[in-house]
Amino acid sequence: MISDKMKHLVQNSSVIRAMFEEGKKLAAQYGAENVYDFSLGNPSVPAPEEIKEAIRDIVGTENDILVHGYMNNSGYEDVRNTIAESINNKYDTKFGINNIIMTVGAAGGLNVILKTLLNPGDEVITFAPYFGEYKSYVDNYDGKLVVVSPNTATFQPNLSEFESKISPKTKAVIVNTPNNPTGVVYSEETIIQLSSVLDKKQKEYGTAIYMISDEPYRELVYDGVNVPYLTKYYRNTIVGYSFSKSLSLPGERIGYLVIPDEAVDSEDIIAAANVATRILGFVNAPSLMQRVVAKCINSEVDIAIYNKNRELLYDSLTEYGYTCVKPEGAFYLFIKALEENDVAFAAAAKRHNILIVPGSSFACPGYCRIAYCVDHGTIERSLPAFKKLAELY
Amino acid sequence: MISDKMKHLVQNSSVIRAMFEEGKKLAAQYGAENVYDFSLGNPSVPAPEEIKEAIRDIVGTENDILVHGYMNNSGYEDVRNTIAESINNKYDTKFGINNIIMTVGAAGGLNVILKTLLNPGDEVITFAPYFGEYKSYVDNYDGKLVVVSPNTATFQPNLSEFESKISPKTKAVIVNTPNNPTGVVYSEETIIQLSSVLDKKQKEYGTAIYMISDEPYRELVYDGVNVPYLTKYYRNTIVGYSFSKSLSLPGERIGYLVIPDEAVDSEDIIAAANVATRILGFVNAPSLMQRVVAKCINSEVDIAIYNKNRELLYDSLTEYGYTCVKPEGAFYLFIKALEENDVAFAAAAKRHNILIVPGSSFACPGYCRIAYCVDHGTIERSLPAFKKLAELY
Repeated sequence: MISDKMKHLVQNSSVIRAMFEEGKKLAAQYGAENVYDFSLGNPSVPAPEEIKEAIRDIVGTENDILVHGYMNNSGYEDVRNTIAESINNKYDTKFGINNIIMTVGAAGGLNVILKTLLNPGDEVITFAPYFGEYKSYVDNYDGKLVVVSPNTATFQPNLSEFESKISPKTKAVIVNTPNNPTGVVYSEETIIQLSSVLDKKQKEYGTAIYMISDEPYRELVYDGVNVPYLTKYYRNTIVGYSFSKSLSLPGERIGYLVIPDEAVDSEDIIAAANVATRILGFVNAPSLMQRVVAKCINSEVDIAIYNKNRELLYDSLTEYGYTCVKPEGAFYLFIKALEENDVAFAAAAKRHNILIVPGSSFACPGYCRIAYCVDHGTIERSLPAFKKLAELY
Repeated sequence: MISDKMKHLVQNSSVIRAMFEEGKKLAAQYGAENVYDFSLGNPSVPAPEEIKEAIRDIVGTENDILVHGYMNNSGYEDVRNTIAESINNKYDTKFGINNIIMTVGAAGGLNVILKTLLNPGDEVITFAPYFGEYKSYVDNYDGKLVVVSPNTATFQPNLSEFESKISPKTKAVIVNTPNNPTGVVYSEETIIQLSSVLDKKQKEYGTAIYMISDEPYRELVYDGVNVPYLTKYYRNTIVGYSFSKSLSLPGERIGYLVIPDEAVDSEDIIAAANVATRILGFVNAPSLMQRVVAKCINSEVDIAIYNKNRELLYDSLTEYGYTCVKPEGAFYLFIKALEENDVAFAAAAKRHNILIVPGSSFACPGYCRIAYCVDHGTIERSLPAFKKLAELY
């Protein structure tokens, strides 16, 4: 009795569920400390101490009905003001309350903006490898996801193929930097070129094409690398931000959209995104957490912990003969599988108690994603297994 | 550039937004204490004290990464277990963890189950007057909302019209008791008859028709009235519950779905609802609040406060000549407008600084909804205005 769309989705999602179940079975068989689960992007660094203080403080001093009550579907005005000011201070932008819509994480934000923009049949472009959920998000509104094939030399986007795939039906482009699954940060040069392609095609077709920047990893960068703020390069940019990773609050579902005034039809988009938030059933971003993130707007998780994982894993794996573009952000390594078939390679890894996700899940076969948001000890203990795995090839 | 669906929705939603803005203007002009805003269903009774204690306790003693982290998209197993046991204790049911899916409020739950069930063109029946958002929720999945006209004598559902509107395309029926906007509780007799109509039509068409019970007001009942637990009367019942009103946490977006084993294809529905939760962008119900409601599963708000409002308002308005079915639940009075046109009547009320919502918004013209979830003082101060308003007619 379930819908045809869901039948298809349930079948497809069973691969990852099977991996999760398999991991539990392995842990029971070999002991949890002898299973190296790199499959999930669940932050391993705890939320900053200020989060606890903020929760206690808000619950202890603010009015209950305000803290847990309904507000404007776009979020509390004071929270949106704090966020706008914080972005303005960091990136020299000029956003106000109206440009910020609080969302149920970045996933909620992407759904709100896609619901707002897409008519059935509209095309949304993204760059492989990409977070597999984009396909479902676009399909929720009967849009069509158009995928640009990966540039495996650098994992910067393939811009000539991108240009050739833009059509009069292209309504949006989803960009994700720092990237899941590669950890690559798009360079300023890439962003400038990408924007210029979009400008050219908008002119050619007389359309507006929105660049949707999915930014759960913006704050997770290493070696002082610069992550350009995309609204400054392309006027039709809409940002979907999440505090899931920057404050280690993924389960709390808290993030925001930025819809700049300079975007074409911004007033309509802002009004529609407010309504979409309500009718999609989010209603509003969770109220207490809105107030918490505003109070902790200058806090950050200790990314030195992720960096230590990144360095050890990258150095060790390259020494063992694995190849991979050194990630500058997020908490993923995207290694080349040691055999052509990435699914077979992930299966071989599992026989060494290593759980990694085949690149096929990100439209990039031949590679595998390692999520290094785990205990440092897990990485240390996994190294002999990675070495043995490499020696098989 | 916004989608055609959203253009239409933004236009329609502007009526309520206009009322909200109007209320602010009136408050600035006459002073907030001289404006009687009965337009919003935002609980006025604070959350029980145990909520604060639970938040402090969880934040102080539980593991940060667990409290704020990802879990199964259906929710924490211990939380779902607590909820299943609580329902079983109250209603003598036999639910387990698998039957419970934590959701972003009842609105999130309804969207998850409609996404799970509906193919384009499928029909969903509901009974006027009904919560206007149902139309958008069904439309999100290209379903068609079929409305049974109101039985204004009692506001129990019109069952003969219901029977005539069930077709082979009917996939679900949304039932809301205690009801928004009438406050009426469907009697056990109504539920038995409704179930028997559904059983007959299922047999006739060889289909499964799901009864979706939208239950944000289950706990808000007066005079010891009984609210039948619908899964006990009809096997294809799916419950969408919310803690928004029962614990005064509407902004926190926390609720759950109950999908009983005895429902046709329950395994598929449970698996698909898990996936739908993820791909609609909810990902999971907010994590801290899941743990909070489980800890406070036996807590309740002080409904004596709402009852006091109900009694004073009902007694006074009927004395002034208004007519209305005395509500047994929720926090709404649904009065007959004193002129045929409910929109004109609401406008007349506004000229007396009374803000109420025209019944047309609930597909029931000729009536108006008064949300009495306000300070008792607001009700006391509003009475002379209601009296003057009645004297005009």
